[in-house]
Amino acid sequence: MSPAPGLWITFEGGDGSGKSTQAERLARWIGERGRTVLQTREPGGTEVGGLIRRIVLHHRGDIAPRAEALLYAADRAHHVATLVRPALARGEVVIQDRYLDSSVAYQGAGRVLDAAQVRDLSLWAAEDALPDVTVLLDIDPADARRRLDAADKPFDRLEAEQAEFHGRVRDAYLRLAEAEPERFLVVDAAQDPDDIAAVIRARIAVHL
Amino acid sequence: MSPAPGLWITFEGGDGSGKSTQAERLARWIGERGRTVLQTREPGGTEVGGLIRRIVLHHRGDIAPRAEALLYAADRAHHVATLVRPALARGEVVIQDRYLDSSVAYQGAGRVLDAAQVRDLSLWAAEDALPDVTVLLDIDPADARRRLDAADKPFDRLEAEQAEFHGRVRDAYLRLAEAEPERFLVVDAAQDPDDIAAVIRARIAVHL
Repeated sequence: MSPAPGLWITFEGGDGSGKSTQAERLARWIGERGRTVLQTREPGGTEVGGLIRRIVLHHRGDIAPRAEALLYAADRAHHVATLVRPALARGEVVIQDRYLDSSVAYQGAGRVLDAAQVRDLSLWAAEDALPDVTVLLDIDPADARRRLDAADKPFDRLEAEQAEFHGRVRDAYLRLAEAEPERFLVVDAAQDPDDIAAVIRARIAVHL
Repeated sequence: MSPAPGLWITFEGGDGSGKSTQAERLARWIGERGRTVLQTREPGGTEVGGLIRRIVLHHRGDIAPRAEALLYAADRAHHVATLVRPALARGEVVIQDRYLDSSVAYQGAGRVLDAAQVRDLSLWAAEDALPDVTVLLDIDPADARRRLDAADKPFDRLEAEQAEFHGRVRDAYLRLAEAEPERFLVVDAAQDPDDIAAVIRARIAVHL
């Protein structure tokens, strides 16, 4: 459960789903309605998290799968304890790019670890904190790939993984959304960005 | 269980117990008997571990307790998977400065985290790998302190708090040794270093 009295919204989806753009638009919209907004992300939302992010995303050479899962969990533990919980306690709206569903989808379903173990690890790290709303921007990995190619920026370690891997991640995300329909808002990310923003605002307006 | 066919020896104990000196002496002695020895440590025995060690030991500012536990576990996961297990599989002798007993004794004694949870986390990280022999160099924290300090002056308040913490660490170590008498060799670290080395060699000789 989200630590009241704030509002905690996380964005999930594959790279190229438009997550960051929509998070930014929602943050602006909520800010215009007079609420204090904290925009943050995992991994890397804190100074300690930035150091961890550098290891996970940019280390040359393999990282053992369990070590990678534990690094993401460490980032999460520090981020939730020192940044997210205090902001929610002050009544702020936290808009966060990626949270534990990313770990489950990418590490659990997509790789060699058991999804339930990855989820348990994340929940232990975060002392069971869960967002009020999770926006899943769902997109076909081939479409997302074409968007990223058009942006012409260098791929990091995760982005360079195979297309088949991204298909498994998408399936894992959709299963998570099915399991928690109250928390998840699944949006077709192939739509026009204005339409996507409107769908998200409609859902969030209820909580404001 | 140790992944055969090598021999895995860990050294545990408080700062000032003479761990590093005895590990070094044992490594030399085993090397002279013709076995290949890998000397390593946690945290920081690998390149990834070195980056993690830098965060845990040298970051200015607090790290959330669960984040710290997860960082140590991440270091452990990578160290065991990429360095210790392969060396043991090649039949080498691994001599390691600190392993999961350190996490349980130090983090458990800090009284923020539950010792059983810290142990479970470490065992998950290491896929249940445990050393063949763990040498615990047991010393009264006040004696260790006097060793590190030339001047034998009375403790101030902060030092007294530290002494109390190190007392709890020592008790935790001794309880771990009691619970696993086959794995642990408890040595009185107040003895002459030559005598300590002889006691350790006698126990290890059985395995060579």
